[in-house]
Amino acid sequence: MSIEPTVDFVKTLEVAVEQRDTKIIREVLKDVHAADISIILDRMSADECRYILSLLDKEISADVISELEEDTQRDFLKDFEPVELAGYMDYTDSDDAADILNLLPVKMKEEVITSLKNKEKVAHITDLLKYDEDCAGGLMAKELIKANINWNIKQCIEEIRRQTKNVEKILTVYVVDDFGMLQGRVSLKKIILSNDDTRIKDIAVPQVHVVQTYYEKEEVAEIMQKYDLEAVPVVNMQGKLLGRITIDDIVDVITEQAEVQQQMMSGLTENVEEDDTVWMLSRARLPWLLIGMMGGLLGAQLMGFFEGDLELVPAMAFFIPLITATGGNVGIQSSTLVVQALANPATGLLGSSAGSRLFKVFLVALINGLAISSVVFCFIFFFKGLSLAFTVSIALFCVVLLASFMGTVTPLMLDKLGINPALASGPFITTANDLMGLAVYFVIARMLMTAI
Amino acid sequence: MSIEPTVDFVKTLEVAVEQRDTKIIREVLKDVHAADISIILDRMSADECRYILSLLDKEISADVISELEEDTQRDFLKDFEPVELAGYMDYTDSDDAADILNLLPVKMKEEVITSLKNKEKVAHITDLLKYDEDCAGGLMAKELIKANINWNIKQCIEEIRRQTKNVEKILTVYVVDDFGMLQGRVSLKKIILSNDDTRIKDIAVPQVHVVQTYYEKEEVAEIMQKYDLEAVPVVNMQGKLLGRITIDDIVDVITEQAEVQQQMMSGLTENVEEDDTVWMLSRARLPWLLIGMMGGLLGAQLMGFFEGDLELVPAMAFFIPLITATGGNVGIQSSTLVVQALANPATGLLGSSAGSRLFKVFLVALINGLAISSVVFCFIFFFKGLSLAFTVSIALFCVVLLASFMGTVTPLMLDKLGINPALASGPFITTANDLMGLAVYFVIARMLMTAI
Repeated sequence: MSIEPTVDFVKTLEVAVEQRDTKIIREVLKDVHAADISIILDRMSADECRYILSLLDKEISADVISELEEDTQRDFLKDFEPVELAGYMDYTDSDDAADILNLLPVKMKEEVITSLKNKEKVAHITDLLKYDEDCAGGLMAKELIKANINWNIKQCIEEIRRQTKNVEKILTVYVVDDFGMLQGRVSLKKIILSNDDTRIKDIAVPQVHVVQTYYEKEEVAEIMQKYDLEAVPVVNMQGKLLGRITIDDIVDVITEQAEVQQQMMSGLTENVEEDDTVWMLSRARLPWLLIGMMGGLLGAQLMGFFEGDLELVPAMAFFIPLITATGGNVGIQSSTLVVQALANPATGLLGSSAGSRLFKVFLVALINGLAISSVVFCFIFFFKGLSLAFTVSIALFCVVLLASFMGTVTPLMLDKLGINPALASGPFITTANDLMGLAVYFVIARMLMTAI
Repeated sequence: MSIEPTVDFVKTLEVAVEQRDTKIIREVLKDVHAADISIILDRMSADECRYILSLLDKEISADVISELEEDTQRDFLKDFEPVELAGYMDYTDSDDAADILNLLPVKMKEEVITSLKNKEKVAHITDLLKYDEDCAGGLMAKELIKANINWNIKQCIEEIRRQTKNVEKILTVYVVDDFGMLQGRVSLKKIILSNDDTRIKDIAVPQVHVVQTYYEKEEVAEIMQKYDLEAVPVVNMQGKLLGRITIDDIVDVITEQAEVQQQMMSGLTENVEEDDTVWMLSRARLPWLLIGMMGGLLGAQLMGFFEGDLELVPAMAFFIPLITATGGNVGIQSSTLVVQALANPATGLLGSSAGSRLFKVFLVALINGLAISSVVFCFIFFFKGLSLAFTVSIALFCVVLLASFMGTVTPLMLDKLGINPALASGPFITTANDLMGLAVYFVIARMLMTAI
């Protein structure tokens, strides 16, 4: 079983690297998985990283480089010699190699490609560099096993043998015609259980889920998740087989997507991580803080119109946080449910109509609004008297209804406009609801105070 | 290529079901994937669902049942005859069958198990029912291909042939000794490329990532994601091979985990979906709304102490929403970053210390606090004069620092206590920050007003 690095382990390694003790480094890293080595190297300096990589098996080093964090790759690899980097890239899958090359300065990218020994890889990589990184074309690897539909099993096995070094995980064999058009697939199980002279044509499954090069990565994730696929072939418009996307890349897409949604919900404008620089972190946070601040200042202006009422009943100010906080909470709860429903492909097709959706939201808001307002009414009635109790609880009730409505409609509208609806679950809805809540509160207060 | 159902398609099917037109239903569903059929059935009535399932191939029906939403399974399946359900379960993978049986009333569960024809499946299922659904034992399927380490390739292929109906996707062959202890694995590629008399011992890879039955599903997800695995074997404490977990189940775990985190962040206490009942939705929302309400009422009490100041300067009330909203926004931004760092396994081991983490948070808060406070100072100075401008901007600056600190420390503390830290990014932090912000604002105001 492979070894997972502990804190002690990392210390031993650090000491060995400091003393340039080749033997110990090799010994220590012998049974460690590339994914674990890359986690350690992520925390080291560029020089140390380069040194350790030079001591490992080229194939392992290639895997380690692919697994490094993108920031680390960008920082470290630009100091490598092009020939040195090309030496590793010769062992990297085409999709990972293309991703790495995309991080390099243009001149160095060209130099690395020129220095590659494996000429098939050069063709693969230059093909992949054409595609946007966020679409199926940018996610696919060119390495796969394809068999001509007219072959027999023996020929197919020969092809597997020929490609065995290039394609680490076969998963499935894709069947193509003489023009490279995808015709189906054959599982390895069937190949094992068939005779050498069985024709591929007779055992191929024609139903294959495919994606086109231009599909967005979220669409690819949706398809692979829905149909439980370990790999999906990528074809062009004509149906020609170009590559395949494996589930490990899609798992990363799903995780990243969830992180981005969370960050949108919490008002971070760039994809930052806790270990980014102070400057990057500040910059990612500032835009929404400024928007929230502008909302707050607008709220102050708005309340200026009601200064007279506040002078008359200063206790009105006490319940401002209650009104704004409740509006915010209700709004975020509502929008999150809509955002999650929108993210679920099944609901898109067969979901309920906008009308019945809003009616349901209204009912839920009614129940929760009544519950909260009643408690608040009793509390204020007891401490501050009837007229303030009426004002606050009625305003609160209206705010719950309005915030539910806004929280439901905003993400639906953003989605229609092609904007990520998760944005609506963040500071956006809070700021809007703050302003709305204040307006409702003071207008109702003035109406009731004059009435009573 | 398989057909994806459109709205028209669903309508055609609904009409056919109404008219009990067996022929059209069979024709229409012929090329539709089980995952798509289940999405349609999720929206139908229990009777319609049962009727459609009875028309399909038993194997397809079994897949459809496994793919139905959990709520639907719970609602529909309890009305099935035990023998009828057992007829489908005979074709279901052991892990899916166990999940479904866990939803049924105890008596019906026993009846279904007794009615199963496949006696090996009975043994598998009763074994799986022992494990908690949220751990590796509850996620694993018993169906897998294992080969004895002393066999040769020919014997291994015979085993694959024997199991071909039970194990749909082989992915890898697990190697065990005479006592069933896991010794390694062999890829199908190697089996294809080896001669019949090659010994398994000579081509097996001894390094295998394994999980134990008691591992939590999040741990399993972490391991499979880190090492890019399509399947992981499950062993007991002694190292005996018990089953395997495939990546499709883990993709669902990852998605579900992200949804739960989002819901925690937005103050929903149960795992609800937009299409749940009004009552369930209200119940999931109410607890946090009540806590937020209590926070608001506490805030009102707190401000009561400062009623004199408010009477003196009613304009102070204008900036309450600015203070509370900024505190909330900063707190959520900070806590989200910590929550995401905690979710990243790499950071756990080699992450920075609490001290340097807090210092960085302090620097970011300093930059953002200065930026916002300066703008606010200028604005209020222009509209309301120097003394209020000083009060609000200094209070705002302090609130940004405090909220950053709270937003960082709270999730770390919750994590230490074994509580999901995502809770700290939700209404929890907002409510706490509202109260703290108000206190800071009014205390600073009183101090400055007396000073100036």
